Amino acid sequence: MSKIESIKDLFMHELKDIYHAEKQLVDELPKISKKVSSSELKSALEEHLKETEEQVKRVEEVFDKLGESPKAEVCQAMKGLLEECKEILKEDVSSEVIDAAIIASQQKIEHYEIASYGTLATWANEMENKEIAKLLGITLDEEKQADEKLNQIAMHGANERAMK
Amino acid sequence: MSKIESIKDLFMHELKDIYHAEKQLVDELPKISKKVSSSELKSALEEHLKETEEQVKRVEEVFDKLGESPKAEVCQAMKGLLEECKEILKEDVSSEVIDAAIIASQQKIEHYEIASYGTLATWANEMENKEIAKLLGITLDEEKQADEKLNQIAMHGANERAMK
Repeated sequence: MSKIESIKDLFMHELKDIYHAEKQLVDELPKISKKVSSSELKSALEEHLKETEEQVKRVEEVFDKLGESPKAEVCQAMKGLLEECKEILKEDVSSEVIDAAIIASQQKIEHYEIASYGTLATWANEMENKEIAKLLGITLDEEKQADEKLNQIAMHGANERAMK
Repeated sequence: MSKIESIKDLFMHELKDIYHAEKQLVDELPKISKKVSSSELKSALEEHLKETEEQVKRVEEVFDKLGESPKAEVCQAMKGLLEECKEILKEDVSSEVIDAAIIASQQKIEHYEIASYGTLATWANEMENKEIAKLLGITLDEEKQADEKLNQIAMHGANERAMK
């Protein structure tokens, strides 16, 4: 157990957590995409998988800029979030509502990432490392856009189908 | 395993999930508050505990309005989020950075709730149950305000102390 006594120590702890979270997501997103009903949501999730792969590389770049090797620490929260998503996919969900269920679980994941990258970007700014803050800010914006896109898909289609 | 074939079924599934999530939070918040360093954060968490107790009652009111008895279903995501918070509290964290660590974990919890109540309020509107949508909207606003308050505490004090 290493002592956490500065924002830098906390930052490293959080960075290892989100690194594990993103890697779990890269593993699980293709399995989730297979269960999707609409082509619109399917392509949004496939696009977000590519984006997530880039976000993993961006986290590795942050480790590199701090002179550290990328290291993951088990992210219990993302494990729970994905567990929740897998649980609903195991239930007997009709094709009319499966997309609304998947969107709901993905938006929770986006919100986890928004909170995490928001914290990391703030701490990077406080550490006066503008380069790292900028990198994290790019991912933060992508996560917010991904959440907004899921909102739009829900509004324009998935929930309407579920109401039939 | 019951079939989920309508937005109403999904809504009930999500309502049972957030009911369990809020009840876990009521159990854990007092333990987290004890670890806090600043009186400002301590009183914010104590205030949020009272608010969370009211939110539990509001969820029970929603069950009641739908003619159902309140029932909780294990919320794996909140379990993971609280596990993550407990893990950091078990580490050897100095009093200078403990508040920044607790704020980060609490903001993740707020974001989980924002995503969940956001989804529930949207589904209630689609079910054309304005009364329930309004109740859920009240809690959604409270969660957003709680997240914003944690932001302010982080900006005004906790992170500054951690930089010393």
